[in-house]
This record gives sequence, C-alpha cells and structure tokens, in this order.
Amino acid sequence: KRQGIPEVVFGEGKTAEQIISIAKALREKNNQVLVTRISKDKAELVKAVLPQFTYAEVAQILYWKDEKAPLRNNEGYIAVVAAGTSDLRVAEEAAITAEVLGSKVHRIYDVGVAGIHRLLSHAEEIQNATVSVVVAGMEGALPSVVGGLVSHPVIAVPTSIGYGANFQGLSALLTMLNSCASGISVVNIDNGFGGGYNAVLIHQLAQKEKSE
Amino acid sequence: KRQGIPEVVFGEGKTAEQIISIAKALREKNNQVLVTRISKDKAELVKAVLPQFTYAEVAQILYWKDEKAPLRNNEGYIAVVAAGTSDLRVAEEAAITAEVLGSKVHRIYDVGVAGIHRLLSHAEEIQNATVSVVVAGMEGALPSVVGGLVSHPVIAVPTSIGYGANFQGLSALLTMLNSCASGISVVNIDNGFGGGYNAVLIHQLAQKEKSE
Amino acid sequence: KRQGIPEVVFGEGKTAEQIISIAKALREKNNQVLVTRISKDKAELVKAVLPQFTYAEVAQILYWKDEKAPLRNNEGYIAVVAAGTSDLRVAEEAAITAEVLGSKVHRIYDVGVAGIHRLLSHAEEIQNATVSVVVAGMEGALPSVVGGLVSHPVIAVPTSIGYGANFQGLSALLTMLNSCASGISVVNIDNGFGGGYNAVLIHQLAQKEKSE
Amino acid sequence: KRQGIPEVVFGEGKTAEQIISIAKALREKNNQVLVTRISKDKAELVKAVLPQFTYAEVAQILYWKDEKAPLRNNEGYIAVVAAGTSDLRVAEEAAITAEVLGSKVHRIYDVGVAGIHRLLSHAEEIQNATVSVVVAGMEGALPSVVGGLVSHPVIAVPTSIGYGANFQGLSALLTMLNSCASGISVVNIDNGFGGGYNAVLIHQLAQKEKSE
Amino acid sequence: KRQGIPEVVFGEGKTAEQIISIAKALREKNNQVLVTRISKDKAELVKAVLPQFTYAEVAQILYWKDEKAPLRNNEGYIAVVAAGTSDLRVAEEAAITAEVLGSKVHRIYDVGVAGIHRLLSHAEEIQNATVSVVVAGMEGALPSVVGGLVSHPVIAVPTSIGYGANFQGLSALLTMLNSCASGISVVNIDNGFGGGYNAVLIHQLAQKEKSE
Amino acid sequence: KRQGIPEVVFGEGKTAEQIISIAKALREKNNQVLVTRISKDKAELVKAVLPQFTYAEVAQILYWKDEKAPLRNNEGYIAVVAAGTSDLRVAEEAAITAEVLGSKVHRIYDVGVAGIHRLLSHAEEIQNATVSVVVAGMEGALPSVVGGLVSHPVIAVPTSIGYGANFQGLSALLTMLNSCASGISVVNIDNGFGGGYNAVLIHQLAQKEKSE
Amino acid sequence: KRQGIPEVVFGEGKTAEQIISIAKALREKNNQVLVTRISKDKAELVKAVLPQFTYAEVAQILYWKDEKAPLRNNEGYIAVVAAGTSDLRVAEEAAITAEVLGSKVHRIYDVGVAGIHRLLSHAEEIQNATVSVVVAGMEGALPSVVGGLVSHPVIAVPTSIGYGANFQGLSALLTMLNSCASGISVVNIDNGFGGGYNAVLIHQLAQKEKSE
Amino acid sequence: KRQGIPEVVFGEGKTAEQIISIAKALREKNNQVLVTRISKDKAELVKAVLPQFTYAEVAQILYWKDEKAPLRNNEGYIAVVAAGTSDLRVAEEAAITAEVLGSKVHRIYDVGVAGIHRLLSHAEEIQNATVSVVVAGMEGALPSVVGGLVSHPVIAVPTSIGYGANFQGLSALLTMLNSCASGISVVNIDNGFGGGYNAVLIHQLAQKEKSE
Ligand SMILES: Nc1ncnc2c1ncn2[C@@H]1O[C@H](COP(=O)(O)O)[C@@H](O)[C@H]1O
Ligand SMILES: Nc1ncnc2c1ncn2[C@@H]1O[C@H](COP(=O)(O)O)[C@@H](O)[C@H]1O
Ligand SMILES: Nc1ncnc2c1ncn2[C@@H]1O[C@H](COP(=O)(O)O)[C@@H](O)[C@H]1O
Ligand SMILES: Nc1ncnc2c1ncn2[C@@H]1O[C@H](COP(=O)(O)O)[C@@H](O)[C@H]1O
Ligand SMILES: [Mg+2]
Ligand SMILES: [Mg+2]
Ligand SMILES: [Mg+2]
Ligand SMILES: [Mg+2]
Ligand SMILES: [Mg+2]
Ligand SMILES: [Mg+2]
Ligand SMILES: [Mg+2]
Ligand SMILES: [Mg+2]
Repeated sequence: KRQGIPEVVFGEGKTAEQIISIAKALREKNNQVLVTRISKDKAELVKAVLPQFTYAEVAQILYWKDEKAPLRNNEGYIAVVAAGTSDLRVAEEAAITAEVLGSKVHRIYDVGVAGIHRLLSHAEEIQNATVSVVVAGMEGALPSVVGGLVSHPVIAVPTSIGYGANFQGLSALLTMLNSCASGISVVNIDNGFGGGYNAVLIHQLAQKEKSE
Repeated sequence: KRQGIPEVVFGEGKTAEQIISIAKALREKNNQVLVTRISKDKAELVKAVLPQFTYAEVAQILYWKDEKAPLRNNEGYIAVVAAGTSDLRVAEEAAITAEVLGSKVHRIYDVGVAGIHRLLSHAEEIQNATVSVVVAGMEGALPSVVGGLVSHPVIAVPTSIGYGANFQGLSALLTMLNSCASGISVVNIDNGFGGGYNAVLIHQLAQKEKSE
Repeated sequence: KRQGIPEVVFGEGKTAEQIISIAKALREKNNQVLVTRISKDKAELVKAVLPQFTYAEVAQILYWKDEKAPLRNNEGYIAVVAAGTSDLRVAEEAAITAEVLGSKVHRIYDVGVAGIHRLLSHAEEIQNATVSVVVAGMEGALPSVVGGLVSHPVIAVPTSIGYGANFQGLSALLTMLNSCASGISVVNIDNGFGGGYNAVLIHQLAQKEKSE
Repeated sequence: KRQGIPEVVFGEGKTAEQIISIAKALREKNNQVLVTRISKDKAELVKAVLPQFTYAEVAQILYWKDEKAPLRNNEGYIAVVAAGTSDLRVAEEAAITAEVLGSKVHRIYDVGVAGIHRLLSHAEEIQNATVSVVVAGMEGALPSVVGGLVSHPVIAVPTSIGYGANFQGLSALLTMLNSCASGISVVNIDNGFGGGYNAVLIHQLAQKEKSE
Repeated sequence: KRQGIPEVVFGEGKTAEQIISIAKALREKNNQVLVTRISKDKAELVKAVLPQFTYAEVAQILYWKDEKAPLRNNEGYIAVVAAGTSDLRVAEEAAITAEVLGSKVHRIYDVGVAGIHRLLSHAEEIQNATVSVVVAGMEGALPSVVGGLVSHPVIAVPTSIGYGANFQGLSALLTMLNSCASGISVVNIDNGFGGGYNAVLIHQLAQKEKSE
Repeated sequence: KRQGIPEVVFGEGKTAEQIISIAKALREKNNQVLVTRISKDKAELVKAVLPQFTYAEVAQILYWKDEKAPLRNNEGYIAVVAAGTSDLRVAEEAAITAEVLGSKVHRIYDVGVAGIHRLLSHAEEIQNATVSVVVAGMEGALPSVVGGLVSHPVIAVPTSIGYGANFQGLSALLTMLNSCASGISVVNIDNGFGGGYNAVLIHQLAQKEKSE
Repeated sequence: KRQGIPEVVFGEGKTAEQIISIAKALREKNNQVLVTRISKDKAELVKAVLPQFTYAEVAQILYWKDEKAPLRNNEGYIAVVAAGTSDLRVAEEAAITAEVLGSKVHRIYDVGVAGIHRLLSHAEEIQNATVSVVVAGMEGALPSVVGGLVSHPVIAVPTSIGYGANFQGLSALLTMLNSCASGISVVNIDNGFGGGYNAVLIHQLAQKEKSE
Repeated sequence: KRQGIPEVVFGEGKTAEQIISIAKALREKNNQVLVTRISKDKAELVKAVLPQFTYAEVAQILYWKDEKAPLRNNEGYIAVVAAGTSDLRVAEEAAITAEVLGSKVHRIYDVGVAGIHRLLSHAEEIQNATVSVVVAGMEGALPSVVGGLVSHPVIAVPTSIGYGANFQGLSALLTMLNSCASGISVVNIDNGFGGGYNAVLIHQLAQKEKSE
C-alpha cells in the first residue's frame, strides 16, 4: 500500500457479483473503498450484501470509509468548479472521490464563462483553495478563466456534454490543452475521478504535518 | 453594385500585375477598393503604379478610398476585441476592412481570458458597440466571455495561433462553435476579413438614416 | 434583463418537473418563455401544469408569450431558408425562436442547390429580408448561393442530416465555414436556436424605432 | 494497349532524365504521350532533347500527339467548369488531358456558386455537353449546382485551394461526396488528370461510330 | 422531366403515408417510380395501398415500372461487382436501381481481392460490360484491381462494412479516392443508389440509338 | 505579482528588440526573468544588450536570476524523466523552467519503456521526488509506467517526436490522456514549459516552510 | 487448401441458419472449423443442430476439431499477454483461435504497464515463448514494454476498451504503431482473431519438423 | 546481446559526429552495425572516418558487417514486394535491413494491384518465400492481394506516397489494417526498417538449425 491512497474500482462493465468480491477484498486492507461509474441498480445489489457502503447518486460512486481510521488533510480545501447542471455528474465524481480520499471540498457550481460576474463573485473562495478541479463541457473555457484568477495548480476536466461540433468532448479537451493560462493540466474527457485523485495527491503534499 | 459594398480582392496567389489590373478596374466603379492578404513587397509594386493606395502593414491590406464619396455609418461603432500580439494580423484585417468599408472601429487589444480583470475594465466600451468582432487563437475562449457581457451580435474569428493540440486553429474554431453564450456566430480560421465584413453589414443595418 | 431577450431553456436532459419550475420562475420576469429541444411527451406533461404554453411540434419548442406585452420589430422580416423535409426540425427551431422573440419570419422551404431555379424563383423574397437564416444538411451548399444573391447578413446553420462521409454534419459545417460568398457566419451543427437568436439580434438593431 | 488510351506519366518526383527515357519508349508505341505534374524547368530540360513535345504551362502538362494519327471523338464535347483563377491549374490539367486524349473541350471558367447568374448564363453550353468535369476548391459547391442543371454524368474534382477549416481540400471533397444532386461522382483532391481521364472514357463510349 | 430519368424517393425518415402520396404523384408523370432505403415493414404498408409496386428486400427498394413503357438500353450491360455477403445490400441497391431505370445488369458477387483467382475467372464478363459499379467495404481494394482489368469507367462504392480502424467506411472511401488505377470515380459511403444511377447515365450515353 | 511566480515570455514570433524591451521591464519587478522558445541567434542579440542573461541552448531558454534574491524550495526535488535524445529539447525546457523558478531538479534521461530495466534502476530516485515531469514522444508510454511506480503527482508532456501515424504528437497525447495509471495529468504537445511550471506550483505547495 | 489453415467464419451479421450451412460444408474438407464473433444465443441455435461444436463464451468463438486429425506444433508455445478483465474478450479470441489452429498457448493475463513488477514477474515465461500476442486497450502501452523484454516477434492487438479521448481504440492503435521497441507489428482494433492467426503462422514456421 | 540482433541507429536528427561515436561503440560488441534514415552527405562524413562502412543510397542506410562473422539464415528467403518507383526508398530500407541482419532477400518490385497479371507472374516466387514484406503507398491494396496468394506471414508497410485524400499515408495504413486477407500485420507509415526487422525475426525462427 505504497501510495497511501487505496486502489479504486472502475465499476463500468463489472457485474454486481464481481464488485462485491473485489470490494470485500479491498476492505480488508484499506481504510476506504471507492467504486466509480456504478449505476443505481447495480449499487443497490451491492449494498444488499455490503450495507456499510454509501451510494452517491449524482456522482455514481459507491464507497465505504472506516470510521475509526485517522483523518488526513486537516488544512485547506479543494475547489471543485463547474458551470451548470449538465456537468454535475462529472463534477460530483471529482468531489466525492476527493472527499472519500480524505480531502475537504468546496463545490462552486453556479458559474460559467458566459456569466463572468457570477464566477467572479466566487473568486476569493476559489483563490483560497489549495488546488482546483475545474469541470467544463461545451466550449470548455472555464479552466482558462479560473487559471488566470488563481496561483495554485488547476486540474482541468473536459466533459462530453454538448452536441454537433462538440464531437463528444473533443472541443472542450482541445480548449483546455491549449489554454493560455499557466498552471493548468488536463485529464481525459469525463474523467472526474482523475480530476479528484490528482487534486488529492497535491492536497496531501501541501499538508504541513504529513499524514505518512 | 447591388450590395452597397464593393467586391474585395483576395491578394494571396495573385501577382502584382494581376492585382494592378483588377484594382484599376474596380476603382472605376466603386468608392473603395480593398486588397487583402497582400505582402509588403507585393503591395509596394502595386503602389509604384497606383500611388493613391495605402498599405496597412499589420493587416496586410492595400486599399483606396474615394475622398469625395459620401460618408456612411455615422452612428455607433464596431468593437474589435483581441487578446494579444500574436492575433493582431487577423484583428487588424477585421478592423481595417471595417474602416475602409465605412464603419467606425474601437480596437480593444489588451485583453485575454486568462486576465479577466483587464477585459472587464473595458466592458463598457465593448457593451456600447453596435456589434463586436472577437478574435482569438490558442483555446479561443474570448468570444464566450464577451458574448456573456454584451447584448449585441458577436462575430467570432478563430486564429491559427498556437501549437501542438491546437491543430492550426481547429481548437479555437470548435470552442467558438460550441460557445454556451448566445448571440455568437463564427467565420473561418484566420478570416479577419469575414469578421470585419459581417460586422459592417450589421452596422449598416443599424443606422437610423440608411445610407442607401 | 440587460439583453432585452429572455433567457432560453435548453430542454434536453431536463425532466418535466425541472422545466416546470424553471418556466414558472422565468414567466415572472419575462414577456416570453422559450424551451427548446423538448419532446412532445415531455411538453404535454409541462402543459398539463402550465396550459398557457404552446407546443411547436416540428420545432420541438414549448413557449409562452405575454399577450399584453408591447410588440417589437415592426419593420422587415427574417427569411428562414431550407432545402427539404429533412432539415425542417432545425429550420423550424430557428423560425419559432425568432417569432417568439418578436420577429416576423418568412419561411422559404422548398428550395435546394440541386434545383437552382426553384430557389431563384424566391430570390426577391429572400433579398428583401433584413437578415437570412439558411439551414442545410448533406453538402450544405445553400448558404453560399443565398449569400451571393443577397446583400444582408446570412446566418448559416449546418444540420446533421446525411450519411456516410457526411460525418454527422461535419461536411455541411466545413462547407459553410469555407464559403466563397461574403457576409456569411456560422453556428453549431443543428443549432437552429442559435440561427434564430442571432437573426433576432440583428433584426432588432435594424429597427428605426428601437424598442429599448 | 488494351485501354485504347495510352499510359500517362506522373511527372512529380521523376528526374528529367527518367522522363526523357520513359517518353521515348512510350512514343514508340502510342499516338500520344502525356506527362502530368511537371514543372516548367523540368519540362524545358525534356524539350531540349525532345523538341516535338508541347508544354501547357498552367496545366503543368508536357505532351506529344502524332499528327498523322486518326482523330477520335468527333461528336459532342466535354465541359470543364471552374469558378475562378485559383482552381485553374487543376481545371487545365483536366482540360489538356482530355484534349490530348482526343476529346473536344469547352472551358467554362468564369462561374462560381456565389454569383449564380453568371453560371446560369452558361447553362445551355454546359447542358449540351456529353459529360462535365466540375472543378472547385473552398466550399466545393459548384458540382451540386451543375449536377442539378444537367442530365449527363458529372465528374467532380475537389481542389486544395482554401485555408483554415478547408483542411487542404477535405472540405470540398466532403461537399462533393455528400451532394444531393444525382449523377455526380468524385475523384481525389487536385486530381485534374483523373477528372479529364474519366470524362474521356465516357465521351468515347458516347460516340456513335466507336473509334476502336 | 428533362433528365429522362425519374426523380427517386429517399425513403429513410419518411412515413408510409408520405411515401404513398409522393409515389402516387410520381406515377402520374413517370414510367418508373423508385423508393430507396425503405424497410420491409414500411414497404408492406405502402404496397397495401399501391399493390402494383414490387419490393426488392435485400436492396431495400420499392419500385414500379410501367409495363407498357418503351424499353431503353438494348445494348451492353452494367457489371455490378462485389466481394461478399456483407456488401450485398449496397450492391443490390445499385443493381436494382440500374435495372428499374432500364439497364441490363450482370451481378458478379463472389469475388474479393484476397481470392484474386476467383475474381480473374470473371474477368472477361466484367471487361465486356459498358461500365462497372464496384462495391467494397473493409479495405475497399476491389475497384483498384477491377480498374486495372477493364478499359471502361468504374464507379466505386465504398461501404461501411468493417470494424475498428474502418471508421464506418472511411477506410474504403480513402482507398478508392487514392486508387492508382485510372478511370475510377467514387460516390458516398453506402451510396449504392448513386453507383447505379451514375452507371445508367453512362450506359444510356453509350447506346447507338439514343432513347431520347 | 500575485502568483509568486514571474510572468514568462513566449519568445517565438517576437523580435530581439521586442524581447529586450519586455525583459528590461520584467527585470524591474521580478527576481527572475524567463524567455522560452528563443533561438540561439536571437538570444545572442538579446545578450549583447543584456549580458546578465544566460542562454540554455538545448532548452532554448534565455533567463536571468537575481543573485541576491532569497532562495525558495529547499526541500525535495522535481524529477524530469525522458527516454532519449530526441525529446531532450522539451525535457530541458521543463527542467530549466523549474530551476529558474527556484526548484531543485533531478534529470533522469537515459530511460525508455522498451528498456524497462534501465528505467527500474532509477526507480528509487524517481519515487523520492516530490513531483515528476515525464516527457515522451513516439508512443508516449513512459508516464504510465512511471505513474505506476510513484505515489506523487505526474505531469505528462507529450512531444511531437515521431513520424507516420504519430501525427505530430497526437499519438503520445492520446496515450497519456488514456493512461490506466492514476495520478497523471497532461499538458499540450511539446509544452515543456507547462510541465515545469505545473511541477513548480506543486513543489512550492509541498514546502513545510512556505516561501510566501 | 493451400494454407494448411482452414478458412474461418466471421459470425457477426450472419444468421444461425447461414452459419450452420457454412459450418457443415467446411467440416467436410477441414480438420477444424472456427466461427468467431458469435453470440451465446446464436451459438446455441447452431449447437442444437451441430452438437459436436464447442462454444468458448468469453472468446465468443464456436469451433470444432477433428479428434482423429494429426497434432501439429509440438514445440514451444504462444504467449497471449493482456492487462485486465476488460480486454479478455479480445485476448481469448486470440488464444482460442491459436489453440483450435493447433498451437499451445500460455495466457498471462494479470499484467499491465501501471504495475510493472507484476509484468516482470512473468518475464521469463513470456521470453520463452516462440511468439507473443499482446492485447491492450486504454493507452495500449503493453506491447512496447513486452517488445523490449523479448527477442521474438510480437503481434500487438489494440482494443476499443476505454472512453473519452480513447476514440474507440484509436489511442491504443496509434500507440502500438508508434512503438519505439523493435519487432512489433499491429492488427486492427479488437482483431483478436488476427492476432492469434498471425501467431500460429509464425509458430508453425518455427517447428523443426514441419507439419506439412 | 539478448536479441541476437544488434541495436539499430535511427540516423535522422543525429549529427555525423554523434553517429560516428555511436557506430564505433556498437562495432565493438556486434557483428553488424546499421544506421537508417541517413542522407548521402551525412553518410559520406561518417565514411571519411569509418571507411569500412557501406552506404545503400536508395535505402538511405549506412551499414557494416563483420566479414568473419558466422552466417545465419541459410534456408529460405524474405520476399520484399512493392509496386513502383515511388515506394522504393521504403522497400529498400526493408530489404537492406533484412540483408544486413543476415537474411536472403528476393525483391519483387515491378508489381501493383492495378496491373494484376504482372503481380501474378511472380506469384510462385512470392509463395515460396518464408515471409513477405509488402510495401505500398496510394491506396495500399497490395498486401491484401499478396496475403490472399500466400500462406506465410505478411508484414505490410504503408508509405506516405500519394496526395490529396491520401493524408500522408493514412489511407494506405487504414487499408492494410482493414485487410480482409488473413495473416497480415502492419507497421508504421514509411517504417521499412520495421518491416525488414520483423521479417528477419520470423525468418530466423524458421531456420531448422537455429543460429543461437
Ligand atoms: N437549442 C439550443 N441549442 C443551443 N443552445 C441553446 C438551445 N436552447 C437554449 N440554449 C442555450 O442554453 C442556455 C440555457 O441552458 P440551461 O441553463 O442548461 O437551460 C440558454 O441561455 C441558451 O444560450
Ligand atoms: N496528375 C496525375 N494525377 C494522378 N494520377 C496520375 C497523374 N498523371 C498520371 N497519373 C497516373 O499515374 C500513372 C503513371 O504513374 P507513373 O508510372 O509513376 O508515371 C498513370 O497510368 C496514371 O494512371
Ligand atoms: N439510396 C439513396 N442514396 C442517396 N441518394 C438517394 C437515394 N435514393 C434517392 N436518392 C436521392 O434523393 C433524392 C430524393 O430525396 P427525397 O426528396 O428526400 O426523397 C433523389 O432525387 C435522389 O437523388
Ligand atoms: N514555451 C511555452 N509554451 C507554452 N506557453 C508558454 C511558453 N512560454 C511562455 N508561455 C506562456 O506564455 C505567456 C506569455 O506569452 P506572451 O505574452 O506572448 O509572451 C506566459 O505567461 C506563459 O503562460
Ligand atoms: Mg494561474
Ligand atoms: Mg450576449
Ligand atoms: Mg451576400
Ligand atoms: Mg443531374
Ligand atoms: Mg481501367
Ligand atoms: Mg502513481
Ligand atoms: Mg523485442
Ligand atoms: Mg494468406
């Protein structure tokens, strides 16, 4: 368990039975267990056998945390920033991932580049974070604006939300890779988990009292 | 001369001799002559024969305006908005096109989405325009932010400035087509002329006293 | 309400309940409410609660207009031009959007580039419009021909109609961006709403007596 | 010599020496020799040795025809249709190829879709052809309009003329493949030779008195 | 009815009712009526009202021919060449289209480039055709081999059959456009109708006694 | 100077004169000045006027550090990992950027995935870093392997090194975005600067005694 | 039957009836019959008629081997290497194909580049194979690492497993084509059959006592 | 020296000095030294210092073989098959690579799919090879035809020869990946070295008396 972060289960394409047996095994050796991309139906089949697990419906994450495990990351927080309702599944995947892995999260979800003043009214809250995860579909411009406002690392997560020349998230992905703001790095389209995970790695490094 | 706007010469791939003969012919029947995408060297060859022409070096436009022609568009102005030095050739192509075709132009060139406050300090000047031309390379996010600030039409011009996953302007083009701000329409990559021309068509429609 | 145009609801991916609550809120503060991309079934659920709303089936738009609100745009009209039956959903999305937002619309739907004389028999009606919205799938050549006929701005809307090397509308989109006619700008594939909205912004600017 | 049409030499990437020796060999067994894609400089080196050859500069074709050979294709003609000066190299490659291979050619070069009336003023001349080769860059819409005007086969040749979202002729290629006019088939980008060659094959089939 | 060939109905996306009313109208003025891309179910609904129509199931074409109409194309035949069972829908769309429009068709369906000797055993039959339609999916190499065997025009029809790096027919399309055999032109992916239609236009031109 | 990190000058497309005047201005207000993507020739023109600057030739970076400025980042180091000689320009752009901005850097350049044992012999040195920048062209697989070895954040930098189906770095970019190792985020193709800059942001967060 | 390897049936898109009749015919003339890409349901319909056949469910292959046929390939084995559970369908398609065609197969399925030590613990088993088939989705880096470990030929099989910028296997395909390890060649995305078949051809060549 | 095959130097982007020092080092420990993608000029600089090296100009390979080293691969040969003059650089890169690494090579260069009978006149020579390397640009169909003729493994090498919709070899690459002939695997565009190298690995496996 070198990484200090438990292995995470990618639920898509696995049966409830497979997930139950993996989850049981992981719970033996870890303080947290995290199953991403799991539908409500499948999660309920798992919970029937493993009632200690919690299901975060929007995020489509099933997880378990050992109540008795020591807490980590007591300083600072991760800002998860997203524009609207359509990107929420991915934003919540990032947020829940980060929370289960021990980080505090501030959600700033009511902001988009086409309404810049709403975003700016949250500028301070975002600037005070240790690291930001910025989730955006359509044209994917939000990370560029946030990156210009803050001096901490920004993890940009493109989503596949959009239609036509969006090409299933390609548009947002290219926007983020080409950002003229410094301090932005990018994960795969719809990879909210990756956004949250990277943010936690950085957040843990930033703790004065390291947990390990 | 149905359109009220003269035919414009695309200079690229034409010799100085070809341009001279076309320009002479157009000057007979129009109050303005406009040659776009013409290099300094070629422009000087043309000016040696047609000294009444003016060369706008950054825009790479050679033009002539009949001093005695009646002025048009005496109300309002077009805002040409761009982020930095790299996009200036395209921005100036839009601006000079609009000016030669009779519109007043405000240039707002010191603004980019990664420095949102500089852009906002110009918000009023942009909002008061009749129509905006917004030029951007790299991630191409500027039109989305401007589109959210203004209630007039925005013509978005992607440029090929960038490298890597920019794919010669494809990134900026897709961004603009997918903009979540309403009131934005897009022209071809690096088509500053198209941006300026569309803006003039709209600007002329907006004149209380129509010029024709 | 700076824009003079109400916010528009993108119905896709929203439940009838969500739409009802948004629509109620918008009706408080606006003279019109417009919900795009809403299926007949969903629209009927909304109308059961909000019977004042009208559903435009081909356009897939649900809308409400305050009968007592002052009328706008009393001069001129928007031409919505389309080739055939397949593109009608998108053309009607443009047309209904424009009408609900207060513009007069002429529909010219029986025309395509492969039957140029039918198009030309409507030339005058199109030329007399203040602005045109030209909708085309397949090869997307219609805006180029219309753009050559008129001297007003043309908003080109590519559709995803076609198969094979059409690549879900990419073919029509590229055609329109590369048009050799001046005065054309382009919105996203299938974005009839964007076509209608941009046209209304221009149409309002062209009113001698401005409505605001 | 099964095809009744001599083998054609692709000059690009061949040295003058290689071309001379191939040309000499072909002249032994054929009534015509055709070298395409050969620059003026290289053509002059070849002509220094083989002065009977003629160089068509715009087409970049070097050819020789046996004056004493019997003439073919005495009925009808091929229409080669193109919009403007930029596409002339490809249009001439088609036209010269067809002429050297024995067909009569009418060139209709002053026409484009953005000026539909100029095209229509040539409608009869195009309709009376046996087969048309339609060359177009930029948005590549010309074959669709011509295809709608005529009842004979149309060979469409996309060119790489354009910039930005033209993607080196991809835009024109897709337009032509997606044409909603019937009776159009397409060759490779810039393949004027292929356009001319296919037209000759069809033109020869259409002769009442077959030449072979 | 300038083209001598009746208008053809694209059945996809049209209801049985719409097709019935179009078919009735067309039957008034034409000797043939052809509806392509129509499913068996829909065809049966139409036939219940218009029992004179015949349904070609593999081709998915519904058609009617006036028995008393004069026959055309009494010389020669069109070869429709295809590799295997997967491409048969498209090959039959070409063949039935050609037959209903009055041409004789030879089907050569048991041939593919990976079994070249089977193809060669049909060489003479293909060479004796007036024009060939060659249908191929996967790598799409068949038209190149056929084009090298024959001296008549080849219409190449790529199909979307394949998987992985086939990209829905893009692979076969590019292969055909890049063919190093002369005399090949290409229609859209899966456009069997276009292949048959182009072949008929050429076949009619090749008749000594022209039918019109 | 909100970011604690000075603005960095993108040298490409700027003249020596422009760079000199920007560099002079930045030196007034910062402890470091960094000009990236500047050729040796141009750098020497700048150094003739500003002899205090140093040129890092492989990295193509010109920089100046105030000797008297307080040092930052006294704990830990950034690992810059690359496979071979071809990727060195980009790797050095990352390394020099990080060093000038105040971080200690370990270069591990003799490693590639096709020689996994050489990479593993450096495993400990990479694992002990605070953050890694992993630079790779061709298939771009190195970040996946490194990401599996370490428990700190990995910034992956694809390069355009390769040919054929590499498509100017697209191959490496997609590989990195799809990595099945957790804790990897990606910057634009050839963006060594971005890799170094992001690593410094993270490295500074990880200092026990924060420098600001 | 020149190849010594029987023809293989591609089951997708064929009915159970078609498969039964093809399978019966092939069994007459071959020692093995292999039907790939056949679903469980369809396989059961076939087995009801041909009970001698065996269905390999994960591989989705239905096959029959003549028990009395002489055995081939008694030296060495093929290593089929894959990372995880998601790629198993394709890996098993390769493995079963190879086994039915007479080769011994070692499956090494618990390995991936992000856990390099697990892969290395199997290094000797892979190195001792005659030829390897390496199956990978996501970033597709496994063949590069394996290729560096072994001195025998590696057949790389990209899979379509992944999401977002994976583009249905394009990412893994490009990775494998650009591999910096020597001795790797690539088959189509998801083409496990091709991987197994190529490996068997090589394996048979490597037998001291050739079977034919 | 686990692989039995020496490391090969990729000459592109390396200076003569770098190549000299690498070549000297490799000569110490190997029986052959191979430098690919090296221009004539650079090769002559190297030969001035290392006169024992031979330069293969068409292949652009510089190599040295220890005359006293034991010979390998005394049975069978590799067939290198290519269509025409344009693909020769890549074909020779494969052939020389194979020869220097110890295999006998038969070159069959006068064949293309558009002239199938010339190819078939060499069928026996190709069928008798142990393994084939098939090189093709343009539509890249040659490997499919060869694959159908032979029962040994075929390594397909796409080249970037072509224009227009060839997209720098993408067309040939896709053709080969989608081949409907079994027993074909593919290397990167223009990767003649990879083709030759893979063939040698297979050829060596096929030796009765293994050389190691
Ligand atoms: N059919 C449509 N296509 C594109 N954008 C639309 C459409 N309908 C509404 N919109 C935009 O979507 C925004 C509302 O999105 P939402 O807040 O998700 O309902 C509006 O401000 C419009 O800009
Ligand atoms: N301009 C051209 N574009 C495309 N193909 C051509 C052209 N000129 C000649 N060809 C073809 O190239 C073949 C000759 O190629 P080569 O043997 O390389 O000279 C001829 O048989 C023609 O089919
Ligand atoms: N299967 C087909 N593929 C492509 N185009 C077709 C097909 N069938 C008919 N068409 C064309 O579509 C036109 C009729 O389209 P529509 O008016 O939508 O029925 C005809 O004139 C033909 O040019
Ligand atoms: N090599 C580089 N690659 C990408 N971005 C860079 C590079 N060097 C500097 N930058 C960015 O470019 C900005 C400066 O651009 P400019 O004002 O054009 O000099 C800096 O703030 C950096 O964010
Ligand atoms: Mg920042
Ligand atoms: Mg706005
Ligand atoms: Mg116009
Ligand atoms: Mg026609
Ligand atoms: Mg031929
Ligand atoms: Mg890790
Ligand atoms: Mg190896
Ligand atoms: Mg074979």
